[in-house]
Order: sequence, then C-alpha cells, then structure tokens
Amino acid sequence: MAEMTTSRLEAFSDGVIAIIVTIMVLELRAPAQPTLAALWKVAPVFLSYGLSFLVVAIMWVNHHHLIHAVREVTARLLWSNLYLLFWMSLVPFVTDFLGKNYREPMAVALYGLDLTLCSSAFYLLRIILLEQDHHDSGLSEYHASIQRKNAFSGALYLLSVPLAYLSIYASFFIFALIPAMYFFPENKLAAGHVN
Amino acid sequence: MAEMTTSRLEAFSDGVIAIIVTIMVLELRAPAQPTLAALWKVAPVFLSYGLSFLVVAIMWVNHHHLIHAVREVTARLLWSNLYLLFWMSLVPFVTDFLGKNYREPMAVALYGLDLTLCSSAFYLLRIILLEQDHHDSGLSEYHASIQRKNAFSGALYLLSVPLAYLSIYASFFIFALIPAMYFFPENKLAAGHVN
Amino acid sequence: MAEMTTSRLEAFSDGVIAIIVTIMVLELRAPAQPTLAALWKVAPVFLSYGLSFLVVAIMWVNHHHLIHAVREVTARLLWSNLYLLFWMSLVPFVTDFLGKNYREPMAVALYGLDLTLCSSAFYLLRIILLEQDHHDSGLSEYHASIQRKNAFSGALYLLSVPLAYLSIYASFFIFALIPAMYFFPENKLAAGHVN
Amino acid sequence: MAEMTTSRLEAFSDGVIAIIVTIMVLELRAPAQPTLAALWKVAPVFLSYGLSFLVVAIMWVNHHHLIHAVREVTARLLWSNLYLLFWMSLVPFVTDFLGKNYREPMAVALYGLDLTLCSSAFYLLRIILLEQDHHDSGLSEYHASIQRKNAFSGALYLLSVPLAYLSIYASFFIFALIPAMYFFPENKLAAGHVN
Repeated sequence: MAEMTTSRLEAFSDGVIAIIVTIMVLELRAPAQPTLAALWKVAPVFLSYGLSFLVVAIMWVNHHHLIHAVREVTARLLWSNLYLLFWMSLVPFVTDFLGKNYREPMAVALYGLDLTLCSSAFYLLRIILLEQDHHDSGLSEYHASIQRKNAFSGALYLLSVPLAYLSIYASFFIFALIPAMYFFPENKLAAGHVN
Repeated sequence: MAEMTTSRLEAFSDGVIAIIVTIMVLELRAPAQPTLAALWKVAPVFLSYGLSFLVVAIMWVNHHHLIHAVREVTARLLWSNLYLLFWMSLVPFVTDFLGKNYREPMAVALYGLDLTLCSSAFYLLRIILLEQDHHDSGLSEYHASIQRKNAFSGALYLLSVPLAYLSIYASFFIFALIPAMYFFPENKLAAGHVN
Repeated sequence: MAEMTTSRLEAFSDGVIAIIVTIMVLELRAPAQPTLAALWKVAPVFLSYGLSFLVVAIMWVNHHHLIHAVREVTARLLWSNLYLLFWMSLVPFVTDFLGKNYREPMAVALYGLDLTLCSSAFYLLRIILLEQDHHDSGLSEYHASIQRKNAFSGALYLLSVPLAYLSIYASFFIFALIPAMYFFPENKLAAGHVN
Repeated sequence: MAEMTTSRLEAFSDGVIAIIVTIMVLELRAPAQPTLAALWKVAPVFLSYGLSFLVVAIMWVNHHHLIHAVREVTARLLWSNLYLLFWMSLVPFVTDFLGKNYREPMAVALYGLDLTLCSSAFYLLRIILLEQDHHDSGLSEYHASIQRKNAFSGALYLLSVPLAYLSIYASFFIFALIPAMYFFPENKLAAGHVN
C-alpha cells in the first residue's frame, strides 16, 4: 500500500543532487572590482567548487547505478538514502568553508569528514542492496567489487581528516586521487557495456 | 478537460520539497575564520538544519504515501496541497531564525507554529482524501489511524508554541519526540509491507 | 526530428516555477534579534511573499491547464513559453523590492508591471493554442472564455501601474482582487469536472 | 547493467539548467531605496540577466535536440554532458560579474570565455553523437550543418575574449549576434518540421 517506486526515489534524489551541484555556484561571489588580483582571490573558491562539482557528479553517477539495481524500496533503503542526501547537502557548506580557508587544516579536515560520511552512506546503501539480492551471483560479484572500492575510498577520506593537521597537501592529494580512481574505471566499465 | 494527474501534482510537490530541503544549507554560512570557536557558533544553526532536514524528509515520505492514495486531483485537494507547500516553504525561514536565536522563546515558538500549520495542512489533505474513498473500509481504517497520529503530533506542535515561553527545553523535547514517533512506526509499517 | 513533447516542456516549466516559488523565501531574512518589533519589520516582506506565492501558484495551475491542451510544441509556442518564464522569473525580484518598499509607488508599480507582462505572455500562449485548434468548437469556446478573463486581469494589472502613483491602496486592491477572481471560478470549474 | 537512459540524463540536465536559469535572479538584488536612480543602477545587472536567460534558454533547446538524437548513453557522452553542465553552471557567476562591471574588459572577456567553453562542450557532445550514428546519412547531414553553426558561434565567442580589450562594444555585438543567429533559424527549422 503506497510503497515507493525506485523511479520516485531516483527523481527526488536527482532533484536534490541537481540543486546541491548548482547552488554551490552561489558561493562564487563575483568580486566587485574587475582586477586580476580580485579574481585571483576567488581562485581557491573556484577550485574547491570545481572539485566538489566533480565529486558530486561522480556520486550522482554511482547513485544512479546503485538505485538502478534496487528492486524494492524498503524503509531501510529509503532512510539510508536520506542519510546520504543529508551528508551530500552539506557539500556546499564544506566547499565554501574550504574555499575561504584552503590553507587551514580544519577546513581541509572538515571537507574530508563530510566526504567520509557520504562514503559511509554509500557503503550502507550497498549493504542493504546486497542483502536484497542474494540470488544472482554475477551481480553480487559486481557489487562486491564496487563495495571494496567504496570502502577503500571511504578509508582514504577518513585518513584525510587527521592528515590535514600534518600536511594539507597530503589531504588534497587524496581529494584529487579519489575522483581520478572513480572516473577512469567507470569509464572502462561503461565502455565495456557499450556493445 | 485538463484535469491534473496525481503524478504531476507529485512531481511539482517533490520539486518544491527538494528545493526546500536543499536551500536551507545556504543559511549555514561558513565562518570566515577557521577556528573551533567560530565553528562552534555555527553549531546551533547546524543542529536546527539537521532537525529541519529530518522533519521535511518525514513530511516528504508522508506526502508520498498520502498522494499515492489519491484517485482524483480535485480543486480542493490541489489548493490544500499548495496550502501545505506554503507552510513547508517557510521551514527554511523559521529554521534560520531558530538557529540564530535558539535560546529565545519567540524563535522556538515560531518554529513550533510553522510545524503546527504544516500538520494542519496534512490533516486537511487527509480529510479530503477520506471523503473521496468511502468504500474500501480496510484502507479507511489505515488512513484513520494515520490521521489520529497526525492530529496528535499537530496538537503537540501547537502545545510547543506557548510552552516555549515557559521552557524552551520542553518545546525542544517535542521537536525531537515527533520525528522519533514518525520515524519508528513508519519503519515497522513499511517493513510489514515488504513481503 | 527531435520535436519537443508537451511533457518535456511541462517538466522544464514546472522545474522553473517550483524554483521561483521556493527561492522567494530566501529573501525572508530572519531578523537577528528575536523581538516582536524585529519580526514586525519582516511582516511586509512576509505578506508580499504570501501574495506572490499565491499568484505564482495560480499561474502554475493555469499553465498546466494551458499546456495540457497543446497538441504540438511549435517553435512559437516554445519561445512564448520561455517569454512567460522570463517574466515569472522576475517575480522574486519585484516581490523583494515591494516587501522592502511597500509604501513607495514605484515598488508597487513595478510589481504590477511584471504581473502585466506575465499576463501578456499567457495571452500570447493562448492565442497560439487557439490557432492550433480551430476544429473543436466546444473547446474553443472554453478557451475563449478563459482568454477574456485573462485579458481582463491583464488590463487590471496594467491599470495598477499608473494607479500606484495616485494611491498604492488601489493597486493593492487589484493585487488582492485578481487572485480571488481566479481562485474561485477555477474552483467551481474544476468541481464541475469531478464527475 | 545499470546503463543510464537518455530520459534520465535529460531529466537531470533539465533540473540543473532550470536551476541555473532561475538562481541568476537572486543576483538581481532589489535596491533598498525606491528611486529611479537606484533602479537605474540595477539596469546593467538586469540586462546581463536577460542576455544570460536567453543564452541559457537557447542552450536548453539545443541540448534537448541533441540528447533526443542520442541512442546510447556511453560514459564519454555522460562525462561530456557533465563537462557542459559545469561551464553552464558558471553562467550565473560570469553574468553577475558582467552586470557589476559591464564597462570593464575583463568582465566582458570572462563572460565570453565561459560561453566559448560551453560551445566547446556542445561541439564535443555532437562529435560523440556523430560517431554513434554513421548510418543514417540524412540525419548526419542535419547534424553536420548544426555542428558548423556551433563551431562558428564558438569561434565568435572565442574572438570576443581578446576583442573585449580593444572594444567592449564589439564583444557585446557578438553576444547579441549569436542568440539572434540561433533564434531565427531554429524558428524556421522547427516550423519546417511541424507538418
């Protein structure tokens, strides 16, 4: 009775993700003076925007692949999804904080922490998904492989939190590494599906 | 001629709710200084954001269950839905006010008042729905049970308004109690529907 | 080849309208001090928000009825629709200006002007629609009746522009009258369609 | 397994584009004083908003036509689309910067640069599309013709960047010319498709 369909869950999540990715640009305040120096000051905010756009875009693609495999929207899945959207909704906040304080360990650590929590939500969602499908072993193997990758990137994000207090560059390296890691295999994987 | 479908009503409502839940994060202004003290000041704004995210998410789930049971989008239903969206659209405003003035009875009372009005809109929507379906007694019993729960939480929210002037903690207790009340049974209910 | 469907046009328009109606609340800045006097100052901004919410909601309902009758998305219809969305997208701006300067003729006139332009766009859209359907005379009569009502409310909005310089109250009376005029007959009309 | 459908890609892109086009209005800050002089100061911001609304609306129409011709959402197409959305998401930023500094070469050049990058993304998307469809020669001819037009307008936008340092009026002429160029043929083209 009134069970939610996956398409409805997907449409709502897409709406929230589309807004998250777009409102971040509101924090890119145009400098009042048209000098290179003024624009230069916006550069870190711009770079953190670009990074977060990429991170959220990857999450959107992963979210789509994940939800597409769901057969039944149970309450646990629904609330785990809202748990994910909550941490994703904080991305504009930690991005803005990072853009304004990119040399401060705390801002770098907070950014890493929010992405760790997003990763944890993805991990949780896939556990629920894997419990639903215990039949199709090919599919399970595929999800288990993604889950390992998810656990690995979540662990790296978690590592970036204390690391920021030793060297912010190490944390930035992690922030750059994970999108690269997701971006390329996804590419290969999807290419493998074309034919 | 040009009657609205429930899916259209749902899509528009979902769009508005997705925006409401996401723009609240714009009020979480990143502190300019990266100190723990500066972050600490944002904590009440963050907590009120978290509470409102949960409240709006629960409303979204309830709204879905409600609209899913609708057979015909009459003008009364359409305008009652817009009445609900109006009060929901004020959640970011009262959340921001609460986050900035969390120790002030007025801010707490205003937050409770807006949620009372949202509850009243849900109550109204379900009355209209119950009038549409007078055949299926099993369904009616189900809706009547939700309606009682709705009336109870609406009354508690209403109580939180004057209570804030006696003790803001009593009002906060109500704000925490109602999501818990909705969250757990929904969980059980949906679990019962899985198979 | 790649003709747009009405459902796509509707979905995009709905998205824009949902955002328009929701971002207006961002202009309701929560007062920093929790005093009745501070809240009272927000009252005109709140009232202009409420009025615009109602006006945009009515436009949304009318837009739905209009687009639902469209059989073919021609380029003229597409661009007329974007012309409507442009003037609608300015509603948050004129609403904010009105809320901050509700006693000033210019702010009242500007609000009336934007609504006049929105009305002109609806008029244009329905002309294009009527040209498409010259067969079904019953439908044409129905649209011609709505078109007259549209012309009447457009003329009233146009009148509110110079009138604001004589008496802002006369303009406010028009702003209150038109939603009432649309709201009630729509109600009756839809009620007539229920069975 | 979990390939994305074109309708999903389109819905997400539409969501992002609808938000882009609408949040720009948030940068139209209502002047606090209701004088003609104060409104006049907002005029350049308003004009740059109007221009960007038109540019983004044209991109939306073109994007629809492009995606509609896609048969398979490959990873390359998906990421090229996100590349387009990234540069489109910066339109509100460059629009605001232009509105505040419309007499400054740098602001004009930056606006032209972002539109150049958007054009490059459209060019890339169509290359991927053309590689997918090598059968239907009529369709290919149609796309090749649009692609030439796209290359031409992209080259003009690129030209507007250095030109702004010679004469901002020359760049503004390009900004006005390209929408006109897209607007009219699109009109003719679509009209030719009606029957």
